[in-house]
Amino acid sequence: MTTSNFDSLFRARSATFVGASNDPGKWGFRTLKHMIDGGFQGNIYPINPKEKTIQGLKAYRNITDLPETPDLAVIIVPPPACPAVIRECISKGIKAGIVITAGFAETNAEGERLQQEMVDTAREGGMVFTGPNCNGIMSPWNRQYIQFPAFYSPPGPIGIITQSGNVMDSLSYQINRHGFGCSVCVASGNEALLHCEDYLEYMGKDPHTRVILSYIEGFKDGRRFMDVAREVSKKKPIIMLKAGKTQAGARAAASHTAAIAGSDAVFEAIGKQSGVIRAKNLDEMLRMGLAFLRQPLPKGRRLGIVTAGGGWGVMAADACEELGFDLIKLPDETIRELDKILPAWWNRGNPVDLVAGAVADNIFKAVELVMQCRNVDGMMFLSIMPAMRRESFDQPHDAAEREEWGPQMLEACANALDEFNAIADKYQKPLVVASEHMWAGQQEQAAIDFVLGGRNAVCYRMPDAAARVLDALVKYGDYVRRHSKS
Amino acid sequence: MTTSNFDSLFRARSATFVGASNDPGKWGFRTLKHMIDGGFQGNIYPINPKEKTIQGLKAYRNITDLPETPDLAVIIVPPPACPAVIRECISKGIKAGIVITAGFAETNAEGERLQQEMVDTAREGGMVFTGPNCNGIMSPWNRQYIQFPAFYSPPGPIGIITQSGNVMDSLSYQINRHGFGCSVCVASGNEALLHCEDYLEYMGKDPHTRVILSYIEGFKDGRRFMDVAREVSKKKPIIMLKAGKTQAGARAAASHTAAIAGSDAVFEAIGKQSGVIRAKNLDEMLRMGLAFLRQPLPKGRRLGIVTAGGGWGVMAADACEELGFDLIKLPDETIRELDKILPAWWNRGNPVDLVAGAVADNIFKAVELVMQCRNVDGMMFLSIMPAMRRESFDQPHDAAEREEWGPQMLEACANALDEFNAIADKYQKPLVVASEHMWAGQQEQAAIDFVLGGRNAVCYRMPDAAARVLDALVKYGDYVRRHSKS
Repeated sequence: MTTSNFDSLFRARSATFVGASNDPGKWGFRTLKHMIDGGFQGNIYPINPKEKTIQGLKAYRNITDLPETPDLAVIIVPPPACPAVIRECISKGIKAGIVITAGFAETNAEGERLQQEMVDTAREGGMVFTGPNCNGIMSPWNRQYIQFPAFYSPPGPIGIITQSGNVMDSLSYQINRHGFGCSVCVASGNEALLHCEDYLEYMGKDPHTRVILSYIEGFKDGRRFMDVAREVSKKKPIIMLKAGKTQAGARAAASHTAAIAGSDAVFEAIGKQSGVIRAKNLDEMLRMGLAFLRQPLPKGRRLGIVTAGGGWGVMAADACEELGFDLIKLPDETIRELDKILPAWWNRGNPVDLVAGAVADNIFKAVELVMQCRNVDGMMFLSIMPAMRRESFDQPHDAAEREEWGPQMLEACANALDEFNAIADKYQKPLVVASEHMWAGQQEQAAIDFVLGGRNAVCYRMPDAAARVLDALVKYGDYVRRHSKS
Repeated sequence: MTTSNFDSLFRARSATFVGASNDPGKWGFRTLKHMIDGGFQGNIYPINPKEKTIQGLKAYRNITDLPETPDLAVIIVPPPACPAVIRECISKGIKAGIVITAGFAETNAEGERLQQEMVDTAREGGMVFTGPNCNGIMSPWNRQYIQFPAFYSPPGPIGIITQSGNVMDSLSYQINRHGFGCSVCVASGNEALLHCEDYLEYMGKDPHTRVILSYIEGFKDGRRFMDVAREVSKKKPIIMLKAGKTQAGARAAASHTAAIAGSDAVFEAIGKQSGVIRAKNLDEMLRMGLAFLRQPLPKGRRLGIVTAGGGWGVMAADACEELGFDLIKLPDETIRELDKILPAWWNRGNPVDLVAGAVADNIFKAVELVMQCRNVDGMMFLSIMPAMRRESFDQPHDAAEREEWGPQMLEACANALDEFNAIADKYQKPLVVASEHMWAGQQEQAAIDFVLGGRNAVCYRMPDAAARVLDALVKYGDYVRRHSKS
């Protein structure tokens, strides 16, 4: 694989859709429609021997007839026709393809044979292709949207490599809901020719990609994956959900993408050696990914917690200790300083319980006092409301006032996150925030994550989720330190 | 404790606020304000010797001066004054109190002594009280809102017992966001006199309460808790988050509510013997609670999964097998029936992967075919979009059409859940649904849970969360069957 192959795939200047359709029920319709609607800037050539025009574009009978050599061929013809299309692509000089069509190695022996024929043909001709049996790709910086749902991820810093199309859809959609965008997303399908590690290598070099999320059911070449991951991890965090880890899951994976799931223990070892962070589910993967975009990496597991809610502090302490964090004893000097700003009966422990009624100035001061302790590597803050610098959280009854109130409150919430993030920046230690947003009406609740994301900020819901995020930061920090020395 | 004590507490016909205030920064202001704003139907008597009126109500100098004996006394005076107020209450014949004030056993020896004095006095006088150091209670069926945040849970079937005020706030708020309401919520604070098991016993009998959520940091009387829980569990599921299970958590709990956390292993044993379902965090507690309101209890762990997304199926299979579910082999007869409605290349396995492009009629039929298998105890369905009976999921560009589109789509989503729930009802087996809602804009995303809750339906996000919900249903089903025989 050369860089130019990947540029043709992800930064295509022109594309042909082989099997393009005017029938809205067909994939040959949807993929093309989304490419057009997504605002692709280059030429698009639909190929369909039975039609004059497809979705308003001039249709061609075959690849040979095209007036230029497009960078990319999207292939949506039935399986038996696919190998011939690959041959045509090569004859024309096309360097990259995406085979959307399903019905190959994931179904039966004949499918397996056809898939191998495509691979052999492409290899010989110096062409690469994604798939088959895949959901397409999104390359938002190139406004190149070739995927099933009518959803157009905005450009951003997050790369997605997934062996499931639904997972690409779900992750990119959630990333957008959180106010972030994607660099490159690929649903790799059966990975007949291009494997997850190939995309990983590409994203490792891609300047837009700052963090990589990956859903994997099985490796075609575990050794090469490990080698690539080890290098990429030195520069960019990779967060992975490895599915198919049980027998039932492995069976499902085999019929889904013809993946051989392999031993979960082996994957665990691969992950550790290559710095890959493992997520339990897709929501956690996203939570971790967003933290890496923003938080300084901690130097260890010595933790301070400040909470505006007693119960939240207890839950956080449990979650952090279970993950091996050391909730440090606060230095006497810090306690003396905290005494000056907290009520007489404050608990003098860690978590620092701010007790009801703390005001914002004192909250940020308390957080900073803990953050500047030499024996603190990172922090968690819980329950953001009193840090929002609002005297009242009551919704106005008047409709016009209510209209203005929502954005003002969202702004107050984002400002509080900004203040916390400024403390993290100042001390170069992570500060992860978890909170309920009880003040919010339905509208504000829906907007919070998006508004915060617009400031490159995140607020988690549950203390145990925040603890898992801190754990990921520590693990990756360890990896980076270990490998920056060598 | 007699029933009439608890009726005075949760179904008060009149109440006095000792330490009521006109100063918006004080608890004596907020608790009274929320009682008024929440629409309490009985008489309210503020007590404050320095004011003529409090928030528009006539103020009294002390309890003795009140024109009648109120059912309930809310006490918000400093700790040293509290025992005397309890004595006054008893003299007046008041049967129940809520001591909001903090600064007792959770702080120091003097606090401990004052707390004990209150307990001794109340016991002798036949009075009960909630707290001290608590966030109040909500009794929505009685429109009785005595709590810190300006949030009024609608009446509903969920009871909350928590040793953390934040947790009461957070849970009741989230319950409302999901379209449900609460029967009785109590933040029990230090539990000086009334313990969690007392509230549990009450809610066991309360006709409005159908499921009980509980956050506990420590038991005052573990033996009695177990006895009460064992009985209540026979009729109503109890879901509990036990905090303070690590050393750090236990320390935090001690300073929070003076709780002695006790051994986690002991709690685990108590839970098992008494049918208490254990939740990992508050979100999971809610997910489980909502399932108990709706789903039939399964007879075992033999599971069928139908998925409209391959990757989701793999993740679900992993999660279910890890929890000990048996993903059954589909009977030949069922496979033959599924062959008639699914594409030729469907996987003929469990999870049943519907493959892209399945239509709603066939989806519901496939689910029903699996559900009617004799060797299936319960089911999971994944990825709801194709079951929504919509031809297109694209948002209209026209603003007026867009306005109508949202509610229509929400209706379509709720209808799909109704169809799934009807299958669960017909076969009296649980059917839990997990899905992304990629079609939804920000507005619809915010409304989905609420709209579904209005139909007593829930759609979970992650397959592993849905698996944990099914696990809770199985565990509780086991308990109920075991104890209905004896």
